[in-house]
Amino acid sequence: MKAAVLTAPGTLSIEERPTPEPKENEVLVKVEACGICTLEQRLFSGRMSLPLPLVPGHEASGRIEAIGAKVVEELVPGQRVALDLVERCGECYYCRIGKSNLCLNRHKDAARMLGGFSEYIVVRPNQIFSVPDSVSYEAASFAEPLACCIHSLKRLKVAMTEDLLIVGAGTMGLLHLLAARSMGLRVTVSEPNPARRQMAAALGADFVIDPTVTDIAGFGREITDGIGFSSCVVTSPAPSALEPAILAMAKAARINIYTAYEDVMHIPLDLNTIHRNELLITGTEGRVQEDFFQAVRLLSFGKIDVNPLISARTSFSRLEEGFRTALSGDAYRVLLMHSLP
Amino acid sequence: MKAAVLTAPGTLSIEERPTPEPKENEVLVKVEACGICTLEQRLFSGRMSLPLPLVPGHEASGRIEAIGAKVVEELVPGQRVALDLVERCGECYYCRIGKSNLCLNRHKDAARMLGGFSEYIVVRPNQIFSVPDSVSYEAASFAEPLACCIHSLKRLKVAMTEDLLIVGAGTMGLLHLLAARSMGLRVTVSEPNPARRQMAAALGADFVIDPTVTDIAGFGREITDGIGFSSCVVTSPAPSALEPAILAMAKAARINIYTAYEDVMHIPLDLNTIHRNELLITGTEGRVQEDFFQAVRLLSFGKIDVNPLISARTSFSRLEEGFRTALSGDAYRVLLMHSLP
Amino acid sequence: MKAAVLTAPGTLSIEERPTPEPKENEVLVKVEACGICTLEQRLFSGRMSLPLPLVPGHEASGRIEAIGAKVVEELVPGQRVALDLVERCGECYYCRIGKSNLCLNRHKDAARMLGGFSEYIVVRPNQIFSVPDSVSYEAASFAEPLACCIHSLKRLKVAMTEDLLIVGAGTMGLLHLLAARSMGLRVTVSEPNPARRQMAAALGADFVIDPTVTDIAGFGREITDGIGFSSCVVTSPAPSALEPAILAMAKAARINIYTAYEDVMHIPLDLNTIHRNELLITGTEGRVQEDFFQAVRLLSFGKIDVNPLISARTSFSRLEEGFRTALSGDAYRVLLMHSLP
Amino acid sequence: MKAAVLTAPGTLSIEERPTPEPKENEVLVKVEACGICTLEQRLFSGRMSLPLPLVPGHEASGRIEAIGAKVVEELVPGQRVALDLVERCGECYYCRIGKSNLCLNRHKDAARMLGGFSEYIVVRPNQIFSVPDSVSYEAASFAEPLACCIHSLKRLKVAMTEDLLIVGAGTMGLLHLLAARSMGLRVTVSEPNPARRQMAAALGADFVIDPTVTDIAGFGREITDGIGFSSCVVTSPAPSALEPAILAMAKAARINIYTAYEDVMHIPLDLNTIHRNELLITGTEGRVQEDFFQAVRLLSFGKIDVNPLISARTSFSRLEEGFRTALSGDAYRVLLMHSLP
Repeated sequence: MKAAVLTAPGTLSIEERPTPEPKENEVLVKVEACGICTLEQRLFSGRMSLPLPLVPGHEASGRIEAIGAKVVEELVPGQRVALDLVERCGECYYCRIGKSNLCLNRHKDAARMLGGFSEYIVVRPNQIFSVPDSVSYEAASFAEPLACCIHSLKRLKVAMTEDLLIVGAGTMGLLHLLAARSMGLRVTVSEPNPARRQMAAALGADFVIDPTVTDIAGFGREITDGIGFSSCVVTSPAPSALEPAILAMAKAARINIYTAYEDVMHIPLDLNTIHRNELLITGTEGRVQEDFFQAVRLLSFGKIDVNPLISARTSFSRLEEGFRTALSGDAYRVLLMHSLP
Repeated sequence: MKAAVLTAPGTLSIEERPTPEPKENEVLVKVEACGICTLEQRLFSGRMSLPLPLVPGHEASGRIEAIGAKVVEELVPGQRVALDLVERCGECYYCRIGKSNLCLNRHKDAARMLGGFSEYIVVRPNQIFSVPDSVSYEAASFAEPLACCIHSLKRLKVAMTEDLLIVGAGTMGLLHLLAARSMGLRVTVSEPNPARRQMAAALGADFVIDPTVTDIAGFGREITDGIGFSSCVVTSPAPSALEPAILAMAKAARINIYTAYEDVMHIPLDLNTIHRNELLITGTEGRVQEDFFQAVRLLSFGKIDVNPLISARTSFSRLEEGFRTALSGDAYRVLLMHSLP
Repeated sequence: MKAAVLTAPGTLSIEERPTPEPKENEVLVKVEACGICTLEQRLFSGRMSLPLPLVPGHEASGRIEAIGAKVVEELVPGQRVALDLVERCGECYYCRIGKSNLCLNRHKDAARMLGGFSEYIVVRPNQIFSVPDSVSYEAASFAEPLACCIHSLKRLKVAMTEDLLIVGAGTMGLLHLLAARSMGLRVTVSEPNPARRQMAAALGADFVIDPTVTDIAGFGREITDGIGFSSCVVTSPAPSALEPAILAMAKAARINIYTAYEDVMHIPLDLNTIHRNELLITGTEGRVQEDFFQAVRLLSFGKIDVNPLISARTSFSRLEEGFRTALSGDAYRVLLMHSLP
Repeated sequence: MKAAVLTAPGTLSIEERPTPEPKENEVLVKVEACGICTLEQRLFSGRMSLPLPLVPGHEASGRIEAIGAKVVEELVPGQRVALDLVERCGECYYCRIGKSNLCLNRHKDAARMLGGFSEYIVVRPNQIFSVPDSVSYEAASFAEPLACCIHSLKRLKVAMTEDLLIVGAGTMGLLHLLAARSMGLRVTVSEPNPARRQMAAALGADFVIDPTVTDIAGFGREITDGIGFSSCVVTSPAPSALEPAILAMAKAARINIYTAYEDVMHIPLDLNTIHRNELLITGTEGRVQEDFFQAVRLLSFGKIDVNPLISARTSFSRLEEGFRTALSGDAYRVLLMHSLP
């Protein structure tokens, strides 16, 4: 089988490897689609480093090929699936209390992580999420990032009809938009790039604003009878993005630092404001399995359409080109389609 | 009746005023005890200003004297009560959604606020909380600040057996300690003042540490198998208190900025830590009526003893002296006992 | 002004009364629309009794006419509003802990209840919910029943993408459907009446089934990979409706007995099933103000359309006819439009 | 090693078996104490049946003997541990969403369940909970049933100072009492057996009542100013126990059917009462790992003392006698102490 191996930053080697065999409690999956996510882009560009070589890819979908004899759940070869490829230890305190996204040991054994850029992959049964045939492999590869957005919104305890501010309209900002609309929120997207603003509007944002022109706090109070936004997800690491957003918040509002920052970054806000207004500032990273089930159902029920977020499809032979497209700054998701020539 | 009127910072005038008469939907209460809280101290010292003259006092208890004809609840003259004297408008968005501590109009009509430093006071029925005769007037006057601590801990969603760090062992830190122990938390109190540490230990703190000597983060990990504290209440405005506390937190831990700061103060923490560890930073101010009911029950059930926190009792004639004791830095609560000569 | 007075079951007298005057802390509202809800129908038909005479009507909307001098919130004459006309005492334990729908004294003073079937009404500021001009008076009169459905769904702690079963497609079942879809639920409506099933489908039900033909439990497991429905709202008092619905539930599912029963009715289920499957059975009645705000926003944001639920508009002069239509069994809501001749 | 094998109801055979060897991702534990719980009693008496032969025992403690090479967590031989011996599949929907106590496959492979009545046992790392040396093996064996009580109380969303009614003062009723007191609840225990009432009082029940003499509803309203109990755990399967308990509940109260019933049993309550009072009736079985961690901490912090609940200690050679004591109706827990001669 083919596998795309990152041997050094910027260098992908398409290797022929033996198809792995599942142990008695494992499942073999034929991978069909896998997104080039921020993590993969950062590994490729060298801005993030893990022990190399490794096979990247963690936003993957495919179909079941073979099932170990001691797998308990009743699985069927040919079943279409989305995959959870971010390794959790299952033994640490956080894994055991239902917060596996905070796994203490998830960086101990990097080689077992990811792997979606190979034709076949062996997984445990709990890494598999069935999807109906009505969901394309492309759409199913969005289950993972969509689950992260659902996790983010649940952590904010958003409620139907609340006003949510999304800062940044990249892929993750827009997936937040799709999830938030499904939860009945009214969504304002703040984004300086006009093309991205247009996409946000096309995907159903209730309001789209340009933060270089519009005063976010003023806008927020205007649409809420003076109250302000109830919650906010920050998906852009721009230092200038955070402060005006926080100032646009209602009392008791919740703010999620969803983005990571490349440099040290502080909250540009007097603690007295947090104290007096009972603001709540938190962050999220990743998701747990319940979020993933919800993402899969959201895709399966046909309630959202992620196709506009697919900027390009690439193949093993054109994978480096795909990475360059993903890194260009103009793209949303670029997908490796494993069966494309 | 006597009323202590703050006419200017530092100046209290004991005036003879007519006893107020309750309207048909109001209740007249004979006040018996009222704490000199931080708010009163700041008004007296001039560090905080409200339109003067006013009658301070909002941690008050007493007994029902007369009941208006259209009061719906069945109240009985002579009933011992704790009082909720912080005015809420009842009309604004926050009052109506159950967050009356964030009332938008609570500073609009300062004259109606407080008032516990007078012999009689007229209140609405919903400002009254019955307490049994087994609770002294002194203890009942702690219902209000205790309710604020319960609100604070509930906002942190603390759970039995979690490790809580309380920063600062003033009156509010120690009331948090009493409430937290009642919820089954294991409590570590961090406090540089040895006398206050001793009081924290006497009131049942599981661990008491001196932050000038002990590394809080190291201590926290030591007692939690390396995990860290689950939650933290910051009751001290010392700038040096916050950073080591935050660094002692577990993943997904919650931190409440309970104190107000006199100067502008920022969170001394990289946002990446919040993001990656899903830390939650919030603030609280005041309490809602459900918190107050819980505080009254905690006192009524005899499950906590607030008497060690009474540093002195004063009277109308010695009230300024009482204020000076309260402001000395060595005292916990000083109470105005209305019937003391 | 005109007021429709229920003097005896079946007898409505249209009386000319003086327009009421608001006290200093009250607001005068010109009523424009008011639904003939189940409560009004039961009072008219005599199946429910309150001290008569009274002016019914509690699903009302209108516009502000005059504002008392001591009203704190900044209200404007002419503002379009939805009204909360079910009296709460504001003094009892439940009112004070945020569960005013369980008010202990709400039946003590029946004469102050309701009143929407008069041309003008005096209310307190917290009975008023502003709506934008884009919401018709007709639509605004649905805020109250919609709030009850939102309360019901929140009590069930429904989450996006869960499978909800609604038993019964009368007005309240269908309003549950609209609210549930806005929360991102997948909704199955079970209803024996073909016309009502058709309406459920037209309003966006994901699945509509006839319980006299389809096995609900089997259907539920089929669409959920064998898991069953996550939650259920029972809006039909038919004794035969409950048991098959409960048997269709997933483990840890939640069931809301939203309907009242005219006769004594028991849960047709062995307690061992509740125990072993951690089922949760509850009931709801009414709503609190936060639910009402959410209902108003849902209508204001244009996210749902309640117009299909308006079966007829009537006037003061034809009000008894309107009642007969409402009671015919074929209608959804019949609205009294106060300005219709 | 010795193992007590249940070969038929009433027949335990003490067999010599080879000590098992842990695989690379497993841990070998030397068992030291194991309770004879209701499950074991029912298997022994034949009232419950699982495929035989099997080694019972699931309330077990011991110390780590050997650790597989690929275990990720840093474990140490000699470490004292409590054990989670109820098998979960880890693959099904409920296991994956954090509700492993509702595992769909937990009865598929009965032979892998339990096993605490053998000298050594092999477990996965996530079945191990470290306890400090200050906790005896006897006390550590209570972690499992205590975790079930914590799960039960959390499901009821109990809050500090609420009034809880516990129906039945057997071992599980009394463990609920210890957990509930740690959460700051005021606890009333209803129990007809005077010796058990005495034990409830000795363990700190705030009130103990004899339901054959005292009207529970009247008592509940008396101690709560007419409101009623906020929550209730039913630990006794007596049919007469349930109805008076439910009638003693406040509005919005929560009731947990913790017990299983041998015969079919219905809720003796009109649904209108559930509807109108927003009562919540649920059930619980078992616990999840977070509950177990909390139980272990509660024991480790020395905040509760379970020793009064140990009625007898037995050994392999006297195990049948131990079962008879456990089944006598006069005992709380009987423990198999593996090292007793």
